[in-house]
Amino acid sequence: MTPSESAPDRSATPAFAHRLRVRWAEVDLQQVVFFGNYAEYCDIAFTEFIRALGLPDPIAQQRAGRELFVRKMQVEYHASARFDDWLDISVRCERIGRSSMTIRFGIDRAGERLADAEFVYVYAEPATGRSVDIPADWRHRLLGASEPTQPGGTGP
Amino acid sequence: MTPSESAPDRSATPAFAHRLRVRWAEVDLQQVVFFGNYAEYCDIAFTEFIRALGLPDPIAQQRAGRELFVRKMQVEYHASARFDDWLDISVRCERIGRSSMTIRFGIDRAGERLADAEFVYVYAEPATGRSVDIPADWRHRLLGASEPTQPGGTGP
Amino acid sequence: MTPSESAPDRSATPAFAHRLRVRWAEVDLQQVVFFGNYAEYCDIAFTEFIRALGLPDPIAQQRAGRELFVRKMQVEYHASARFDDWLDISVRCERIGRSSMTIRFGIDRAGERLADAEFVYVYAEPATGRSVDIPADWRHRLLGASEPTQPGGTGP
Amino acid sequence: MTPSESAPDRSATPAFAHRLRVRWAEVDLQQVVFFGNYAEYCDIAFTEFIRALGLPDPIAQQRAGRELFVRKMQVEYHASARFDDWLDISVRCERIGRSSMTIRFGIDRAGERLADAEFVYVYAEPATGRSVDIPADWRHRLLGASEPTQPGGTGP
Repeated sequence: MTPSESAPDRSATPAFAHRLRVRWAEVDLQQVVFFGNYAEYCDIAFTEFIRALGLPDPIAQQRAGRELFVRKMQVEYHASARFDDWLDISVRCERIGRSSMTIRFGIDRAGERLADAEFVYVYAEPATGRSVDIPADWRHRLLGASEPTQPGGTGP
Repeated sequence: MTPSESAPDRSATPAFAHRLRVRWAEVDLQQVVFFGNYAEYCDIAFTEFIRALGLPDPIAQQRAGRELFVRKMQVEYHASARFDDWLDISVRCERIGRSSMTIRFGIDRAGERLADAEFVYVYAEPATGRSVDIPADWRHRLLGASEPTQPGGTGP
Repeated sequence: MTPSESAPDRSATPAFAHRLRVRWAEVDLQQVVFFGNYAEYCDIAFTEFIRALGLPDPIAQQRAGRELFVRKMQVEYHASARFDDWLDISVRCERIGRSSMTIRFGIDRAGERLADAEFVYVYAEPATGRSVDIPADWRHRLLGASEPTQPGGTGP
Repeated sequence: MTPSESAPDRSATPAFAHRLRVRWAEVDLQQVVFFGNYAEYCDIAFTEFIRALGLPDPIAQQRAGRELFVRKMQVEYHASARFDDWLDISVRCERIGRSSMTIRFGIDRAGERLADAEFVYVYAEPATGRSVDIPADWRHRLLGASEPTQPGGTGP
C-alpha cells in the first residue's frame, strides 16, 4: 500500500509535528526542494518526535549498543516545496512489531499536503547485525503518541 | 510490491550501471551512509542513464518547458555502505506509461546488493502543472536500454 | 587578517543572531559537524539577516537581474559543534564597498565561540558578469544593522 | 595573503589532481554550484591525495586515536561551476609545521581556474583535545608529493 492511499492520516490531527524552513541550498535547479531532501526532513522530525517522547536519542542508543536503522523508506510527492517555505512535518507511529516499526510522516505547507512518507525502522545490534526487541516502555510511549498534542518545532 | 520482492532484477545483467565512491561527508554517526543519501545516488545514476541514452538532460528539459519530476520514491535497505566503498548503481526502465515511468535501481558493493530502489517519474509542464506525453523516441530508447551494455561510471 | 584576530567581535553584542540546531546528517564520522557545513550555516543566517533588514531575498534579486554572490569565504574553527547542539550565528556587516561587502559571522554554542567566519559578497549582474553598485538604501540598512537588536532565529 | 595572490600555483603542474563531476543536487537556484559545496570538493580531493601518498585514511586515523581536523578554510571564487561540469581539483602541501599543515587546492574546469582554496589541518588527539606531532614519514611523503605525477580521479 502506498502512503497516499491511507486517507485517514490527512484528516486526523497529527500526533506530533515539527516545523522547519526550507534552506537555500536544499532547492535545486527545478526551483523546488530536491526530492532527496525530504528524507532528511523526515529524519529531523523523527529526531524531534523521539525527543518529545523521552526516548533515547541516537547517541544514547549507540552507547547502549542498540540502534534504530531505516530499513525502508517511501516518499510520495504531491506538490513542491520552495525556498523559504515553512514546512510542518507530522509524525506518528503506525505500527510496532517485535523489532521494527512503521512511522508515517506528512509534509504540509500552510495546511496543504506536499508529501507523504512512510519509514520502516528496525531496532538492531550493530555488533552482531541482529535485530532486537523494541523495549516495552518505548512501545508504550510510541503508541501513546497517537493522541493529539500541541505541535512542537522551531518556527513562528 | 516492494523492490526486494522483484528477484529477476538481481540475477539479470543490468542494462546500465554507474559507479561512484562514498564520500566522507555522506557517512553519518552510525558509521554508514546516511540513508537519505541513497536518493541522491540514484539521482546521479539516473542522470548518467539518460545521458547514455542520448535523452535531453535536465537543463535542456527546462529550456523545452517540460521536465521529469520524481513523483514517488521507494528505497529498501539490505546492508550498509561505508566510507570509501565503491558502489555500482544499476538503472533500468521498468515501465513507461503515457506521462510517467518507473525506474528501478540496484545499489551494489562488489556484487552484494545493498539496496533496491524504485522511482516513479512524471513528465510535466511546470508552467501549467500538467503532465504531458513522454515523447515516442524517449520511449523507444528507454525500453531499448534494457539490453545489456557495458557499465558506465566513474570508477576503476 | 584572519577572523580570529578581530577580538572586538566577540565581546560586542551581536547586531543580529539566528539560532539553529545541528541535524543528524550534518555530523560526520569524527562525531562533529562536518566542517564544510559551517558555510551553509552562515548562508542560512545571512538569509535571515537580509530578511530582518527588509532587503530583497535571493529570489527577488534574481527577478531584478542583480544578485549577491560569495566571492570569498574564510572560516576559522575553534571548537566543534555536535549533534543536537543549538548554535547561535551572529551576523554583521563589516564593510561595504561600491559593489562588494564583507560580512562577519560568529558561531556560538551557549556563549562559547566555536567558529568565526568572514564572507565577501559581490553584487553582480549575471547576464553580463559585471559587478554593479550596491543600492544606497541597502547600504543604509546594512550599516544600521550594527546596532544591537533582539536575536531572531528558530530556537527555544 | 589570499589564495588568488599566489600565482605560481596556476602555472605549475599540479602535484596531484582529482577529477569529479558536478551533481544536480549540488547546484542551487543561482544555476551554479552552491558555494559551500567547494569545501566538500576539497575534502574529497584531500582524501584521494592522502590515499595516493599511502597515508592512513580518516578511519585508520580514528583507530589510532589521532586525527586531522580542519582548523581553517579559505576559498576564493573566480568563476562558477555548473551542473555536469568536470572539475579538476589539484592538491598540494604548502607547509608542514609541528602539528599542522597547510594544503592548497585549485579547482579548474578545462584549464580555467574557478576557485582557489587553502585549508589548515591540525593533527590532534580527540581524547585529550591536544595537538600532536605529525609523524616524520607523513612529512616526508607530503613534501615529496610536490613533484609532478599523473592526475588521479574518477573521470574520463
